[in-house]
Amino acid sequence: MTEPFDAVDIIRAKRDNTESLTDAQIDWLVDAYTRGVVADEQMSAMTMAILLNGMTRAEISRWTHAMIESGERMSFAKLSRPTADKHSTGGVGDKITLPLAPLVAAFDVAVPQLSGRGLGHTGGTLDKLESIPGWRASLTNAEMMAQLESVGAVICAAGAGLAPADRKLYALRDVTGTVEAIPLIASSIMSKKIAEGTGALVLDVKVGSGAFMKTLDSARELARTMVDLGTDAGVRTVALVTDMSVPLGRTAGNALEVRESLEVLAGGGPADVVDLTVALAVEMLAAADRPAAEADVREALADGRAMDKWRAMIAAQGGDVDAPLPVAKETETVVAAESGVLASLDAYAVGVAVHRLGAGRVRKEDSVQAAAGIEIHVKPGEPVAAGQPVFTLHTDTPERFARAHEALKGGWTVEPERAGAAVLGDALASDQSVVLDRIG
Amino acid sequence: MTEPFDAVDIIRAKRDNTESLTDAQIDWLVDAYTRGVVADEQMSAMTMAILLNGMTRAEISRWTHAMIESGERMSFAKLSRPTADKHSTGGVGDKITLPLAPLVAAFDVAVPQLSGRGLGHTGGTLDKLESIPGWRASLTNAEMMAQLESVGAVICAAGAGLAPADRKLYALRDVTGTVEAIPLIASSIMSKKIAEGTGALVLDVKVGSGAFMKTLDSARELARTMVDLGTDAGVRTVALVTDMSVPLGRTAGNALEVRESLEVLAGGGPADVVDLTVALAVEMLAAADRPAAEADVREALADGRAMDKWRAMIAAQGGDVDAPLPVAKETETVVAAESGVLASLDAYAVGVAVHRLGAGRVRKEDSVQAAAGIEIHVKPGEPVAAGQPVFTLHTDTPERFARAHEALKGGWTVEPERAGAAVLGDALASDQSVVLDRIG
Repeated sequence: MTEPFDAVDIIRAKRDNTESLTDAQIDWLVDAYTRGVVADEQMSAMTMAILLNGMTRAEISRWTHAMIESGERMSFAKLSRPTADKHSTGGVGDKITLPLAPLVAAFDVAVPQLSGRGLGHTGGTLDKLESIPGWRASLTNAEMMAQLESVGAVICAAGAGLAPADRKLYALRDVTGTVEAIPLIASSIMSKKIAEGTGALVLDVKVGSGAFMKTLDSARELARTMVDLGTDAGVRTVALVTDMSVPLGRTAGNALEVRESLEVLAGGGPADVVDLTVALAVEMLAAADRPAAEADVREALADGRAMDKWRAMIAAQGGDVDAPLPVAKETETVVAAESGVLASLDAYAVGVAVHRLGAGRVRKEDSVQAAAGIEIHVKPGEPVAAGQPVFTLHTDTPERFARAHEALKGGWTVEPERAGAAVLGDALASDQSVVLDRIG
Repeated sequence: MTEPFDAVDIIRAKRDNTESLTDAQIDWLVDAYTRGVVADEQMSAMTMAILLNGMTRAEISRWTHAMIESGERMSFAKLSRPTADKHSTGGVGDKITLPLAPLVAAFDVAVPQLSGRGLGHTGGTLDKLESIPGWRASLTNAEMMAQLESVGAVICAAGAGLAPADRKLYALRDVTGTVEAIPLIASSIMSKKIAEGTGALVLDVKVGSGAFMKTLDSARELARTMVDLGTDAGVRTVALVTDMSVPLGRTAGNALEVRESLEVLAGGGPADVVDLTVALAVEMLAAADRPAAEADVREALADGRAMDKWRAMIAAQGGDVDAPLPVAKETETVVAAESGVLASLDAYAVGVAVHRLGAGRVRKEDSVQAAAGIEIHVKPGEPVAAGQPVFTLHTDTPERFARAHEALKGGWTVEPERAGAAVLGDALASDQSVVLDRIG
């Protein structure tokens, strides 16, 4: 009886939604959950109540604060350069971090990119980089600081000391149907980023079938919530709301996305990937007080400066930058039955198929296949002929093909001619920018 | 991957409330939870979603069916007497089962009272009886049948074989703030009672601050839901909706309530406890096709027949009927600051205080103090003098007094003279019957 609160009273308060939680209640709940005094089954009931009843701005702010206080705080103040970080809420084919971190570092802004692994239908940045032979995700804080000073960019696993409450809560939400709660998404992301100590932060808030946020309104709400949390904590924070109704680029899967990122760093690659990488880099440089024009940023991709940074960054973490990437043991194609124009391509369907091919995990202790994934040969608005491959599916375990094909069924359509009006889901085909809104 | 469903999909369906759960989903979820395939933290998120979003009548009926199917079904068909059972939804000071079971048995109707332990701020019948030295709650089915044949009444723990899904779920709801959901309360109660095989069932559905149901409408809804579930399953079912805005009787706590029950069985005791015991006995006897007049039932309390049954019932389960009951190590009183009439006495405040004194549990594995509890010296409508004790608080651990006093603060009021109109919360003081409605 030395605990000042009873978890059930706090759950009931949120459940009945009659009054706001106090700072003391939130501080205790998050701390007691981290200590194991509040049980997983209590916290999952709480998170469902939060999902259904919401949280006030003050509650979200305090919840984030409590999660930061659950662990250590880092500081980049001793670095010789300003820092800028980026976070994406996750999407299908979202490999942007890979070219972006070295690109920004090429402008003498340090990028400390503490990343996660894939959960659900979206991939994880660390899983992608681990397909590079020798590359390791785990660095000590001292190694990370040294690499930021020498190379200027690092992509590594967040240490166990950073917001441990969030680590526990993130795993819980995944198995209890409580991922899709704006207060919990916002506090999860921002607690780690604020604790990490970055000076500037650019958020890529995705919207569409392949994202957690399905509507522009909810994505804007999440973006606004996070920008407020960052700003209140003294981090210069900006959010771009971007389209995730179709996959980004032409690959989804770990090694496949590294390959596509290398194309971008070599000055090529799909236009949507390049455009979003450049847009985010411009925002990060501005937020770090090292503004650069879009044309200059594009030039750093074309002239090899970003690639040089990439090679240094990967090599510093043991990666063999010249070794061939893993290739799947088996492939199958999906071909168009009739000729026409690809009218739609659903990011969620592709994400689920990629997951089922072995690129994602069902449980957090699962391993992933480096070479599994999907190549997308035709994007919306592009012509396709009967018999032409639309997708190539890659996996090491061919018994997975059947359920991947199932996931893709209905996830893409061919129409005899291009339909008129652009809708969300057709965004890229209609020449609409992948960036839908800017908040900050 | 041999499971036909994913728990997260079913949680999401209830969370988003867009379509009804299918029979197959409900059957699988309840079964998989019983098997441990669905984790506690998943089921607690599900129960919170049910609490906030509700269930259709078809869903409740299937959920109840699935819980019955999770275990064995009993039958009392071989007994020489008809059976009648009673269930109370729980209140503060609700010791009615203790005098009621032997009273009904005195009329040659067998009472198989499978009871539970304390949940939240209400006490549990087994916790109360366990304050009697030597008494044991656990009987085998054979022992229970033998006692029903020889004595005619048994109060014992529901066997592990009966609705094991409910056993698990009941403990989970207690610690996750999901007790107060009509679909879950109704299915929990009725799955056990139907599986138990009683021929007749009388429900005591409590309403008021000390009950799970705070409004007459919600109590009637719960009563109607349960009467429908029972009737559909072939059990003659009746519900009384009764007042729980003030505590029943003048004691709350385990041994204290046994002591008061002995007063009732000795022909005395508080009028509200006696009246409700008699009303429920009359309903049980009628439902079991052994109707008796109210006066005859009262006579069985006055002439010692019910007490004889009590002694036989307790002794059959190892209880020492002549041993002194446990007494708390420490007591404190709460006195009136001014003279007047007790205008209100809040059952919930008393229940919380009793819980905090050690009579209830915070976690399901906690033990309870047999002697902890509260004596109520003044009930609403009764005069009180300045300096006169209103409550005596009992506990073995005096550091608990402070928070119990806190709980009582504002939970009772003294007015210079009796206020005019009777309101819920003043029910007993206004000579209104404790029975507010009858459904069935």
